Amino acid sequence: MPHLVPEVQVIGIAGIKEIQKADDLGKIIFEAARAQGTPIEDNDVIVVTQKVVSKAEGRIYKLSSIKPSSFAVRLGKRLRKDPALVELILRESRSIVRLSRHHLITQTKHGWVCANSGVDVSNVSGGDAAALLPVDPDESAKRIRRRIEELSGRRVAVVVSDTFGRPFRIGHTDVAIGCSGISPILDLRGSVDSYGYVMRVKQTAIIDEIASAAELVIGNASERVPAAIVRGVSYNPSEDGRARMLVMPERNNLFR
Amino acid sequence: MPHLVPEVQVIGIAGIKEIQKADDLGKIIFEAARAQGTPIEDNDVIVVTQKVVSKAEGRIYKLSSIKPSSFAVRLGKRLRKDPALVELILRESRSIVRLSRHHLITQTKHGWVCANSGVDVSNVSGGDAAALLPVDPDESAKRIRRRIEELSGRRVAVVVSDTFGRPFRIGHTDVAIGCSGISPILDLRGSVDSYGYVMRVKQTAIIDEIASAAELVIGNASERVPAAIVRGVSYNPSEDGRARMLVMPERNNLFR
Repeated sequence: MPHLVPEVQVIGIAGIKEIQKADDLGKIIFEAARAQGTPIEDNDVIVVTQKVVSKAEGRIYKLSSIKPSSFAVRLGKRLRKDPALVELILRESRSIVRLSRHHLITQTKHGWVCANSGVDVSNVSGGDAAALLPVDPDESAKRIRRRIEELSGRRVAVVVSDTFGRPFRIGHTDVAIGCSGISPILDLRGSVDSYGYVMRVKQTAIIDEIASAAELVIGNASERVPAAIVRGVSYNPSEDGRARMLVMPERNNLFR
Repeated sequence: MPHLVPEVQVIGIAGIKEIQKADDLGKIIFEAARAQGTPIEDNDVIVVTQKVVSKAEGRIYKLSSIKPSSFAVRLGKRLRKDPALVELILRESRSIVRLSRHHLITQTKHGWVCANSGVDVSNVSGGDAAALLPVDPDESAKRIRRRIEELSGRRVAVVVSDTFGRPFRIGHTDVAIGCSGISPILDLRGSVDSYGYVMRVKQTAIIDEIASAAELVIGNASERVPAAIVRGVSYNPSEDGRARMLVMPERNNLFR
């Protein structure tokens, strides 16, 4: 081969049981990766879906236990959603960004703009239950990372992913809502491109691209693959990197 | 191994010379993949960056040859951009979506909402040149695909990618602006999740996730990797699939 071939592998971690509150997610992922013959290596990025993080952290609420406000009842009628679900969505939100006949787009307390504050009723055990986003997904990522590093002796990064829609484009993609051990942006501003020109613009949201790459093996339907290893990415390790750094500040927001 | 490990490989195609107008991009990619020891296989998705497609299609314009309108001159002053560049951006646009002191967000004639109609001055040969998006990136993808299939005897899909910003999130990710041989959406609506619940919502924009995965090896700085093979993705082959299907119709657009 005349040159080094740049390659990234995305390896789904299967064979993971249904996650329960207080489960040791880092240990479960570490063991499942080893059991399937793909043990964790140095510089792996481990992507963990929000749903299992929320379950391990006990962020599952029975809708029948929630007393909706009168506003939630009115909004639920308009959106044809369970008022208890609407109540949870509102509790999780900082503000309503868009409201239509079918959609409730909010900004979550973390700052993410998404449908229904990320509150989800699919793929949650118990027909009557809703899964809320982790309280602090960057902290969740850090805890999982520390545990995996402790057990494996490897230095890794962790990304917590969720499935979001996008303004202007149909369809959903997975993005990062938490991370640890990785700088969320790969800043190419000021670097010189292959023709000698200075690139002034590009700031790659590398944790979002990693989350999307992982989704290609995670899927969401019949297989149970709640995590993946993304191996071979050139990323900047960072103790301070947090997904929350990707929240667009209000003053720069052209679309609010 | 107790179960099949789901795995996707992302392989950068390097060793590609600087692309010129009328170059046979399909042949160049096919040969470069073979030369580096990673020949194209059945069901590979070949991601090709917009920049090389635009170059091969002669979509490079010398700024000194463009006569800006008086509106482009005024807008250029406000945005501190070359008025000839602003003129090209306006010619490529259907409408202006947002205008601030620093940003010009337009909807392109294809329907994509992005900064500067996708017109780019970085990474283009000749200091005075701008690269416009392909006239019809879905057709570009189809031409490249036909050529690769002809030369390789393999059935593949092709995605043309570009780097876009996003409302509400800092940083850029690569998305698809053209495709051929693949259904752009993997529709999981109505399918049953791993706990027996019906998932009503998720429609994965799989071509965007593939573009983002490819960007992890493509980068944009010193290495010259203008294309990548994404291997192992479960996608729906389609003769009718077009990236343009991801353009949000005006009536469903909550953010216009």
